[in-house]
Amino acid sequence: MSELLTGPVEIVGAGLLGTSVGLACRLAGLEVVLTDVSAEHVRTASGLGAGRARTDTDRPQLIVVAVPPDHLGAEIVAALRRSDAVVTDVGSVKGEPARVVAGEEPAAADRYVGGHPMAGGERSGPLAATAALFDGRPWAVTPGVGADADAVALVVELTRVCGAVAVTMGPEEHDQAVARTSHLPHLLAVLVAGRLAGAPADHLALSGQGVRDVTRIAGGDPRLWQQIVALNADALHDLLDEVRLELDVLQRAVASRDREVVGELLTRGVAGTRAIPGKHGGPVSPTRPVYVSVPDHPGELARLFADAGASGVNIEDVHIDHDPGRPVGLVELVVAEGRAEELHVALESRGWQTHR
Amino acid sequence: MSELLTGPVEIVGAGLLGTSVGLACRLAGLEVVLTDVSAEHVRTASGLGAGRARTDTDRPQLIVVAVPPDHLGAEIVAALRRSDAVVTDVGSVKGEPARVVAGEEPAAADRYVGGHPMAGGERSGPLAATAALFDGRPWAVTPGVGADADAVALVVELTRVCGAVAVTMGPEEHDQAVARTSHLPHLLAVLVAGRLAGAPADHLALSGQGVRDVTRIAGGDPRLWQQIVALNADALHDLLDEVRLELDVLQRAVASRDREVVGELLTRGVAGTRAIPGKHGGPVSPTRPVYVSVPDHPGELARLFADAGASGVNIEDVHIDHDPGRPVGLVELVVAEGRAEELHVALESRGWQTHR
Repeated sequence: MSELLTGPVEIVGAGLLGTSVGLACRLAGLEVVLTDVSAEHVRTASGLGAGRARTDTDRPQLIVVAVPPDHLGAEIVAALRRSDAVVTDVGSVKGEPARVVAGEEPAAADRYVGGHPMAGGERSGPLAATAALFDGRPWAVTPGVGADADAVALVVELTRVCGAVAVTMGPEEHDQAVARTSHLPHLLAVLVAGRLAGAPADHLALSGQGVRDVTRIAGGDPRLWQQIVALNADALHDLLDEVRLELDVLQRAVASRDREVVGELLTRGVAGTRAIPGKHGGPVSPTRPVYVSVPDHPGELARLFADAGASGVNIEDVHIDHDPGRPVGLVELVVAEGRAEELHVALESRGWQTHR
Repeated sequence: MSELLTGPVEIVGAGLLGTSVGLACRLAGLEVVLTDVSAEHVRTASGLGAGRARTDTDRPQLIVVAVPPDHLGAEIVAALRRSDAVVTDVGSVKGEPARVVAGEEPAAADRYVGGHPMAGGERSGPLAATAALFDGRPWAVTPGVGADADAVALVVELTRVCGAVAVTMGPEEHDQAVARTSHLPHLLAVLVAGRLAGAPADHLALSGQGVRDVTRIAGGDPRLWQQIVALNADALHDLLDEVRLELDVLQRAVASRDREVVGELLTRGVAGTRAIPGKHGGPVSPTRPVYVSVPDHPGELARLFADAGASGVNIEDVHIDHDPGRPVGLVELVVAEGRAEELHVALESRGWQTHR
């Protein structure tokens, strides 16, 4: 158990994020108590092992507010008023709730330290929750100027208990950052996906992995994203302005077949993809896929991993292209670039058909 | 060996796509001969087993032109002139080369049937090639109005030999389709990625899986995409117009905090993500992840897959969140929604720590 975070931890809102925090805290041996406007959500989350329903006598050390963005400010203020606990939240915007707290409960504002785990994606609800949701993910911790140092340390400890990587910055800076790395990508994915709605089926039949990747996040809950967009409108508006200017440049270049200008935009895009840090904040290591044909019956995957393990080459990632219509499936083993040849040779010597 | 496609197959251009076609044809027992303006590429592709260098006495049954989009028309015409073979190509645009053939070599235009496999992504060069590149992917076959039926059948057979799923449509319709499903997503991914270039490092530290997915294809070769954009400018321009209009609507709604309009755009985006057909053209089946903690040493993955195999639950996909700083890694097993609980129970009964 953590020395700093001893519990109980109260979770307000047993949706995907709240229930996942509860599961991770329970796994760390902490007592967790749950509240939600939906008694059904509390029952579901309790049933999954994320904690028990809160009672009036509970005295939490830390309250985690995990409600939709529109309700963050009010729920954080309510939590500060009814307890002397440190209060944090897991909402996607941080400036607005900080302003509500400063305006409505300034005397307790030092006990509020905002938070935002970069996890969750397009799923929602307690049934999608998992203690592993935050594993290795960035988790923004956003103390206001008057935040108590011990309160900040406690919230950082929560991110550690959840397996995440804390990134500390001010609330307004956070909103600028996620406008760029999360909210704008979401809106442009929505515009791309919007072009697919109602398109002819035989056109959509040509959809490859690229358009699937670009549009995946556009499948997220519109009610949630409506709130996020409204609460981070200023930062988003500036970025949409930039996009609009660049879109104008692009459209003129396309119309006039100006390859040089199109090339400059494309090159800047490549630079942008390289600016994203690697998993866990480290540099991106070059990897290479090794493709292996695997007969589609139980036991074959196990045999493949046994042979791959015996080769001594570390498997970084695995993808399975499972095709129900074929007796043989294709497994993509992703390994460090310099080890791919070694794995090819090792697997072939054990009778596997690998593809180059 | 295929009864229709007996070879030899000539590949013009031994890059990623050409070499991959060569490898797939060789795997099917076909004779493959290679040409490329770079002798180095031919040597590399030959070394990988994709075929041998072409000689003057070779009489190919099928010529596959796999050169950059700018050179497609000229190379297809040259191939038609120097042989009586059926000629196809693997370029991303189909209207422009068809027009070049109709204008410059109308008498042989019935032997040309365009093609476009939806595969390749952001990699390039023969070293990235694999016979498995096309496995289960759509491959557009785009005969012009005067195309010979046997020539069409031969090109469809090539897609089958490569493991792809043929989708037949006219060249102009193809260009409309890929403007929507590939070229526009690419350009908007580039605009999102462009906002990341030069952004502060602590802002980029908040990058989650969403922005990585949205921007991945923006890492593609700018020289290739410059040509694609120029050659499909008309279809792209219409779509960019639509995006621009919708961006204006979005920006006004963001500025005025008009949640209803933002909500309508978001909902249309969700509909768009659902319009994309599932892998192999089938409907998308709902899946659910099962997370398992796996000690990070050889043999453990094999043991996990053995136990998962024994459970009888089919694994649709696998992701490994490999963290060099931790003794335990997290494996995500993706299974059909209705089978997740069964797999949880089966793995826990065998001593695995699974996460809900």
